[in-house]
Amino acid sequence: MTLKLTIPEMAAYLDEVFPQVAGMFGIDAMDEDLLVMRLHANESHLRPGGTVSGPAMFSLADVAAYVATMARIGREALTVTTHCSIDFMRKPEAERDVIAHARVLKIGRSLSVTDVLLFSEGSNAPVAHASLTYAIPPRKSA
Amino acid sequence: MTLKLTIPEMAAYLDEVFPQVAGMFGIDAMDEDLLVMRLHANESHLRPGGTVSGPAMFSLADVAAYVATMARIGREALTVTTHCSIDFMRKPEAERDVIAHARVLKIGRSLSVTDVLLFSEGSNAPVAHASLTYAIPPRKSA
Amino acid sequence: MTLKLTIPEMAAYLDEVFPQVAGMFGIDAMDEDLLVMRLHANESHLRPGGTVSGPAMFSLADVAAYVATMARIGREALTVTTHCSIDFMRKPEAERDVIAHARVLKIGRSLSVTDVLLFSEGSNAPVAHASLTYAIPPRKSA
Amino acid sequence: MTLKLTIPEMAAYLDEVFPQVAGMFGIDAMDEDLLVMRLHANESHLRPGGTVSGPAMFSLADVAAYVATMARIGREALTVTTHCSIDFMRKPEAERDVIAHARVLKIGRSLSVTDVLLFSEGSNAPVAHASLTYAIPPRKSA
Repeated sequence: MTLKLTIPEMAAYLDEVFPQVAGMFGIDAMDEDLLVMRLHANESHLRPGGTVSGPAMFSLADVAAYVATMARIGREALTVTTHCSIDFMRKPEAERDVIAHARVLKIGRSLSVTDVLLFSEGSNAPVAHASLTYAIPPRKSA
Repeated sequence: MTLKLTIPEMAAYLDEVFPQVAGMFGIDAMDEDLLVMRLHANESHLRPGGTVSGPAMFSLADVAAYVATMARIGREALTVTTHCSIDFMRKPEAERDVIAHARVLKIGRSLSVTDVLLFSEGSNAPVAHASLTYAIPPRKSA
Repeated sequence: MTLKLTIPEMAAYLDEVFPQVAGMFGIDAMDEDLLVMRLHANESHLRPGGTVSGPAMFSLADVAAYVATMARIGREALTVTTHCSIDFMRKPEAERDVIAHARVLKIGRSLSVTDVLLFSEGSNAPVAHASLTYAIPPRKSA
Repeated sequence: MTLKLTIPEMAAYLDEVFPQVAGMFGIDAMDEDLLVMRLHANESHLRPGGTVSGPAMFSLADVAAYVATMARIGREALTVTTHCSIDFMRKPEAERDVIAHARVLKIGRSLSVTDVLLFSEGSNAPVAHASLTYAIPPRKSA
């Protein structure tokens, strides 16, 4: 499946639809099999001790599933999260970016399912694992 | 089960352990059966259109499960979320606070399970439904 | 919302579409707010020690969400489970039926979300808690 | 991490602790990275049309997570499922075995988290995706 947006196009689209989180996330790599995104470590989402908070990890998983879905269906601003299951497995490393590896498991007519693993940058042991469902609005040409 | 903290004690404890979200949440009511909390609607967590974002709803569900658990076991700063399943069912009303109704389903030796329903203030149709598991650290006297 | 089937109609429909589990489940009560179903304790789904297995509890939660959804939309054999999150919280009592309390949280055009609590008959402490999503096929008149 | 049981030892242990499902599942391969199990297609868990039911897929995911955990911690009959999130994404192929690919994401002192993908034999598109948490009982030597 060919992707419908390049990384710069996707980054511009994210800034447009989610201006309130502009600069919070970055896209490292994006192809048919794997999307790699990062959450820039900074004060706004840190717990005491310098580790990234659960809600900030949820945000990263959520935006990664959104980007992975948009890459396949094109810009659909009305696509919304309907479900997320997330397991928090380890404490993230202090002061490190969190990296998301997102893989789309299903793109259907009306929903997508994406698996996301989160890591502290430089580590191979996942800090969290999420599965997200996005509802895709009916499309004229679909 | 008698609760171990009053609302003012719990509010002070939240401000102490999560200073970065001070003022974001309020506790409306807290007894053995039900905890009611609110997310104050404000610019920082709004999506375009004035509705509360998914990550902000996750944050409210997460903090409500934390407060409901702390109320039963007392201050245990090392208590951490290990799992959250959340269904987003309706778009929250614009410019309204989001209200959480949290009920503890289990308090075990090593984990708690809490059910949380989220509503736009003034509405009876839930905007989201979450189940959260917290891991409780081993306690000397437990 | 008026229900579209009575208990005897629903029981007959279940026997028709799921003949392989005929006799495994019963419907105790069904109204707009709450569906009560039971899993008859018997050898086929017991763990050593006489307690009901996790898969059997999953089956009960799944069929309860199905029945609660059908009661609202009418017979739609193509309605399928797309997601289940289930927390197993306590060991069921040996040799007791398991009772499900199902509440529909959302009936949308294309999906339903149902909350299910499971109890050992005669106990108020839930043995499991589930949230299930069913995908509803497009309907001509919807 | 070296595994503590061989495939024949594990198969014998499964037959011992779950005699009621003896013959239902098989272990195809088991190493540190990946466990491959199968659910033998047969009448008892089929939906009309010859496809494997949701509860049968849940059972396979559950036993695969159990086996993957046991392989790491050794025989611990008191290890119990505490949570499962499962997404059903495609209809399984009729009359085909369902294959599970299980990967342990975390083995902690008190819990394990396992990711499981399910496929119809011979297909690369997953029919379901599950994440399971098992609670591990306190061990003397741990």
